[in-house]
Amino acid sequence: MKKVKLKVPATVANLVCGFDILGMAIHEPYDEMELKILESPEIIIKHKDHFDLPEEPSKNVAGVVLLKIQERLNLKKGFEVIIHKNIKPGSGLGSSAASAAGAVMGANILLGNIFTKEELVHFAMFGEELASGVKHADNIAPCIFGGITLVKSSNPVDIVPLNSPDLFVTAVHPQVEVKTSDARQILKKNILLKDAIEQWGNIAGLVAGIQKNDFALIGRSLNDVIVEPIRSILIPKFDEIKEKSLNIGALGGGISGSGPSIFMLSEKEETAKNIAQLMKSIYDEMEIESFVYVSKINPSGIKIIED
Amino acid sequence: MKKVKLKVPATVANLVCGFDILGMAIHEPYDEMELKILESPEIIIKHKDHFDLPEEPSKNVAGVVLLKIQERLNLKKGFEVIIHKNIKPGSGLGSSAASAAGAVMGANILLGNIFTKEELVHFAMFGEELASGVKHADNIAPCIFGGITLVKSSNPVDIVPLNSPDLFVTAVHPQVEVKTSDARQILKKNILLKDAIEQWGNIAGLVAGIQKNDFALIGRSLNDVIVEPIRSILIPKFDEIKEKSLNIGALGGGISGSGPSIFMLSEKEETAKNIAQLMKSIYDEMEIESFVYVSKINPSGIKIIED
Repeated sequence: MKKVKLKVPATVANLVCGFDILGMAIHEPYDEMELKILESPEIIIKHKDHFDLPEEPSKNVAGVVLLKIQERLNLKKGFEVIIHKNIKPGSGLGSSAASAAGAVMGANILLGNIFTKEELVHFAMFGEELASGVKHADNIAPCIFGGITLVKSSNPVDIVPLNSPDLFVTAVHPQVEVKTSDARQILKKNILLKDAIEQWGNIAGLVAGIQKNDFALIGRSLNDVIVEPIRSILIPKFDEIKEKSLNIGALGGGISGSGPSIFMLSEKEETAKNIAQLMKSIYDEMEIESFVYVSKINPSGIKIIED
Repeated sequence: MKKVKLKVPATVANLVCGFDILGMAIHEPYDEMELKILESPEIIIKHKDHFDLPEEPSKNVAGVVLLKIQERLNLKKGFEVIIHKNIKPGSGLGSSAASAAGAVMGANILLGNIFTKEELVHFAMFGEELASGVKHADNIAPCIFGGITLVKSSNPVDIVPLNSPDLFVTAVHPQVEVKTSDARQILKKNILLKDAIEQWGNIAGLVAGIQKNDFALIGRSLNDVIVEPIRSILIPKFDEIKEKSLNIGALGGGISGSGPSIFMLSEKEETAKNIAQLMKSIYDEMEIESFVYVSKINPSGIKIIED
């Protein structure tokens, strides 16, 4: 195979209580990526979007992971990558993870599927390191595996795919800037053991709820006593959006990744759409531009749309 | 019904990484409890064992929970309880939980099953408060619900029954004293966020492994970076027993509750028995008396043996 075109989905990391370990693929928004194998060892990155991302391979998320693959295989071939990005950088919806995961997935297909999914996660994490300074896998894993994933460990890479409950996701991206690196720095390095116990009770409940398809349990486990109270301060109207979403039927939700996007889970599409309207109207009132997305949890992650 | 006789099993709290939230019922050892309803409002407790436990109702774990039930129902009747205790107090195998859970379960049967299992947990926690100063439910819940349980919250009581994997449990109780209250006091009130993240990755992995019957995942999730490194110091030869048990085939294990008992999980009965021998021989060499138990995870908890 010489060419492949991929649909690479947005992802929601943390899932409220699962800071740094849980993540979920959604259907909307998504990037399109076309990869071509080249006979010469060069890496060419072209962005067909308006985000002004650097195209120099060593400074581009997709580029840097392809350089890692080249280096590992001592590969004499190269890649051309065309990226149509729709997942806005800095949205908290896994924009950099999509570039990294799409690049490694595409390269692997073109090379004849020589790597395991775990190995692809390993390579893609170098893209996250470039984007945010931290080699985290909580967006990359669901992008590559699909559904909801647990990053049990990122070194060595140990990914546990969980069930993909039949739920709707509403996500809103208000146009305010929260840098992942800032969002990390405001966290406390020490936490209370009693808070940690409450948090791991919620995580255990969330994982059990996902595996049992117990939506009520999922809902009452979506509580974060460690990260959300600190990070939500950076997101305008967070508390109001969360409270009103729950009032109109959301199971639960919170900050997507490090924000500023917010997500909510619902059993019914109608509820998910009502929440989207609610979110939009709250930001409209504040004259903050926002983008809202409604889709199901995406059980399969990256999809080949043309080869 | 006027009388009931129960087999009340030992329980293993925490399950290594799930401090204060996870617990598991086993078959061996177990207490036998006989409850009789009385027409007068007195509570009579008789211990048919050699542990010198107080029999005055307000000072006895079974007594105190029956007083709570009487108070709640404004009950004009009383109970006589005969306890044949085999689960040694202070073993870390849920001895006080067995007395409390057996008493509330027995009373509920005699009263015509008027309480939910959650309500029974609520009452039984007063027994734990008497025994250890803390109203914890991580032994009581598996004793009442059976199998492996998650205490998502103890106030309000929110118990999530998990799967009961087909695994063997080896438990050793070395005759050294570790008081639950001491074992709690040596814990640090503050922990590092990075350690908490590692811990909740293991908890999520353990719950996923239990629900998926993925024994390898259960094994590699049985790691505790928060409590075990501190508490294991109180237990002679802990590290040696753990290392050698893993070497001969245990999936994993650690301190049972707050110790001094140690438990190990194995897929095969033969492995579980070999581990029991290993544990016994290590303590024999130190001239520490020890009791070893091999049984399966107990999926049903308290059992009626006569009514």
